[in-house]
This record gives sequence, structure tokens and C-alpha cells, in this order.
Amino acid sequence: MANYKLVIQYDGTRYRGWQGQNDTDLTIQGKIEAVLSAMAGYPVEVTGSGRTDAGVHARGQVANFHLKENTLKQNVLGEKPIKESMSPEEILSYLNQYLPEDIGVLSVEEVDERFHSRYHAVEKTYLYRIHTGKVPEIFGRKYVYNYQASLSAEPMRSGAAALIGTHDFKSFCGNRKMKKSTVRTIFNIRIEELPGEICIYYTGDGFLQNMVRILTGTLIEIGDGRRPPEEMTKILEARDREAAGFTAPACGLTLIEVKY
Amino acid sequence: MANYKLVIQYDGTRYRGWQGQNDTDLTIQGKIEAVLSAMAGYPVEVTGSGRTDAGVHARGQVANFHLKENTLKQNVLGEKPIKESMSPEEILSYLNQYLPEDIGVLSVEEVDERFHSRYHAVEKTYLYRIHTGKVPEIFGRKYVYNYQASLSAEPMRSGAAALIGTHDFKSFCGNRKMKKSTVRTIFNIRIEELPGEICIYYTGDGFLQNMVRILTGTLIEIGDGRRPPEEMTKILEARDREAAGFTAPACGLTLIEVKY
Repeated sequence: MANYKLVIQYDGTRYRGWQGQNDTDLTIQGKIEAVLSAMAGYPVEVTGSGRTDAGVHARGQVANFHLKENTLKQNVLGEKPIKESMSPEEILSYLNQYLPEDIGVLSVEEVDERFHSRYHAVEKTYLYRIHTGKVPEIFGRKYVYNYQASLSAEPMRSGAAALIGTHDFKSFCGNRKMKKSTVRTIFNIRIEELPGEICIYYTGDGFLQNMVRILTGTLIEIGDGRRPPEEMTKILEARDREAAGFTAPACGLTLIEVKY
Repeated sequence: MANYKLVIQYDGTRYRGWQGQNDTDLTIQGKIEAVLSAMAGYPVEVTGSGRTDAGVHARGQVANFHLKENTLKQNVLGEKPIKESMSPEEILSYLNQYLPEDIGVLSVEEVDERFHSRYHAVEKTYLYRIHTGKVPEIFGRKYVYNYQASLSAEPMRSGAAALIGTHDFKSFCGNRKMKKSTVRTIFNIRIEELPGEICIYYTGDGFLQNMVRILTGTLIEIGDGRRPPEEMTKILEARDREAAGFTAPACGLTLIEVKY
């Protein structure tokens, strides 16, 4: 079996997320599996670095899949077997030709057979975009949270500073029945101010369900003055979802990069 | 009558253009007139700097409209007449609150009563974006022409040079029954190369129907080697639509700025 690594972009607006709750859901993973299975002539399973929620976008999602060696040309070109594999470049072209216009594959490369996109990920970066300008964002409206009110970046930065490091992020976990560890490490949170927009970049070893969106909702409540930045430490210590802020909308969130 | 100048952005994807052929068409002008008429309590007519085709976008379309003075508050707030006008800031907020999410107003200002957005325009700039990368553009896919093949910018630049100045652009006019003058002046054409994209900025005193799209189609035929750049002068001299290239798709075109 040959193992391939994919880097994928998608506009998540119309999808139920990377992976769905059941097979009939419209998912990004499902769309990619359908194209690869048609290409290979047998069912191909795709493993992502992690699930993204319904409506969340990606500029650098990573996934991997296995193909039986030397069987590809046979299935793609017809009945007559040709004992030759498709090259990664050919797989890339095939995917971009048959995937819908809101999913694009940036690269395909053959990797070590043991490579696993979820288990081997060591760092992920997410971007959350908040449109703070009074005039609504038109062209990027599906990729920002149209907040349309001002936020103070400085208190948000001091609130964010309390989150850096290894903590139990149970207060920021959307799954209240989570049985596995809710301890994660955040390496960095960068808050950039642009005209009419605040961008928050989160880098960590991994994030819990809805975690980036709940962190963002809490930072927004600090930025608009509803909470003092000092509260962040108490929220972490509470280990209770009720202590944190609201879940910011999915549309503002984009998975930027996964490192191995 | 008070005269107001609007600067407008829109994603033209779902519209029949700035102005339609009949009243039932879905148009940007129609959407803005509906909101302003509801605000004023009487029919308000909006005049644009020019029509944009179905599917064309704008980052800086300019329009103007007149309101009866001192009658606004009366209609907005209810039956009881308040003899006070709405400020431009209040009109701006009202428009952005009630316009659909693909139309946004950047500014509203009161201008001289004689100001006319079409007659007084002296310079317009359009941008045409061609996606040349092999990986399809995902996030901006509705604002580029997804050409997905490489183009040579240098011959395009020499072809474009022949267009600068005052010429009869009849060969580049989409309306073959055009009775008015087809003479226009192009001040500048700038061709920028970005990774996976070519941007063409056109600045002139005005453009004929489909003119920027036909100029772009012709430049693409030069950039892909189908035509030599020297042909551009002959195409201009032919004064015949058949001599020029194809009409590039509307989605790649954006009206950037109108100067007065």
C-alpha cells in the first residue's frame, strides 16, 4: 500500500464539517473519498488531521490515504490492466478536476507508510477573523464573523496571555461529556488589528471541540468590556463550560496550517 | 432637494447587473432604490456612474440620489412630523442595515445639487483578475476568471501598450448597434503578476458595453500565444467586433474606482 499526504483548502460554508455524524451528511472528507474511490476503482478512506466543525474553513487541512500499488492505471483507463501507478501530480490533477469548486487540493505527496495525519500532527494554527467595521464586509463575508462593533485589542491580548501554556481547557470544550483528557498546550495567540477587522491566530498542539470558537467568544466579551481580562485565569480554573463566553460563529474560523 | 453621493461595494454574482432591462430584474440599483424609498416614504431614484454587466462586482461604484429636505424623520419615525433631516451618517447606517449581505455602502455624503454621478465622472478604474494557477482558487472563486493555465505577461503588456490613448474602440464594443460615439481614452493599463494570478487594471475616461471584458479576452489570446501583440493595432483599425478576441467572463471583473 502506498500512503499519500494531501494539503487541502475548503470553503466550509455548505458542509456539515470535515466529517459528519452519519454517512449521508455532506462532508469534505466524504467528497474527497468519493473522488478518490472513483479514481482507484475501490473504496478509499481518507483520514484528516482533525475534524473541523460545520461551516469552518481550511487553507491547510492535512489528510492521508492509502492506495494499492500498481492497480491505479488499470482502473482509471479501463479494463486492460497497465501495471503502473499514477504519479502524485496526476492524482492532484484528478482531484482538482473532479472535486466541487469549494474544495481544492494544494499538494499530493507520497509519504512513509506509517505517516498518520491525526496521530503525528504536532502543531496546528487556526485563524479567527472578526469584522469590526461599521460597513459590512462584502467580498469576504462568508469567512468573517460580521460583528460590526469595535473591540479593544489590548485587554484581549492580556486575557489571551493567561491561556498560553499547558492547561486543562475543560471550560472551553463544547463536548460536555468529553471523557478523554481536556489538557492541551497553546504555544501562541497573536491578535492583529487591521482596518475594520481583528484577526486572532491560535497555535497549539491540538484543540478540543469548539475550543477556538469558545476562546474567541470569551476574548470578544473581554474586548467589548463585559469581562475584565483578569477573569481568564478563573475561567480556566473553573473547569466548567458555563464559566466561559459564548461560542463564536463557525464562519469566522479557518484552519491555517498543520505541522508534523 | 438635497443631493447625496454614495460609494458602493457589491458582489454582483446573483444580480442582473447595476441596472436591468425591465423593472422586475434583480439589480443592484433596484435594491438600493427599494431601501431608500422605504426610508423616505416616497419613490427615490438612484443614478449610477454607469451600468455594470450581470455578474460584475464593484469596490467603488458611485451613485447619487435626491431627497426632499426636512421630510425624512417624519416618514422614518412614524406619523408625527419632525422637521429635521436624517444626517448622511444615519442614511449610511439605514442602508447597511436593510441592504442584502452582498451590497454594502462605504460612504454617504451630501453634495452640490448639480452633481451627477454619470455626467461628471472623469476617470474609471476596473480590475480584471485571471486565476492562472493549476490549483483552483477557492475563497475568491466568485471574483476571478478560473483560467487555470499560464499566460505570458510580457506580450500582454506590449499588446496593451497599443491601446493607450484616444481611439475608436468599436472593435471592443459588445453592442453592435451602438449609435453613439465609440471613441474613448484609455489612460493606463497595468498588468500585475501574482503567484497563480494575473491582475489587469484599466483606467480610462469611460468604457463601452463589455469593453473591458473584450479587451481582456484579446489580451488573454495574446498571453497564450494565439495572437502576436502587434495584432492589437490592426484590431483597433478594423472597427469590427469580429476582429477582437472573446468576451472574458463577467465574474473576473470589478469596478474599483470612479473619479470626479
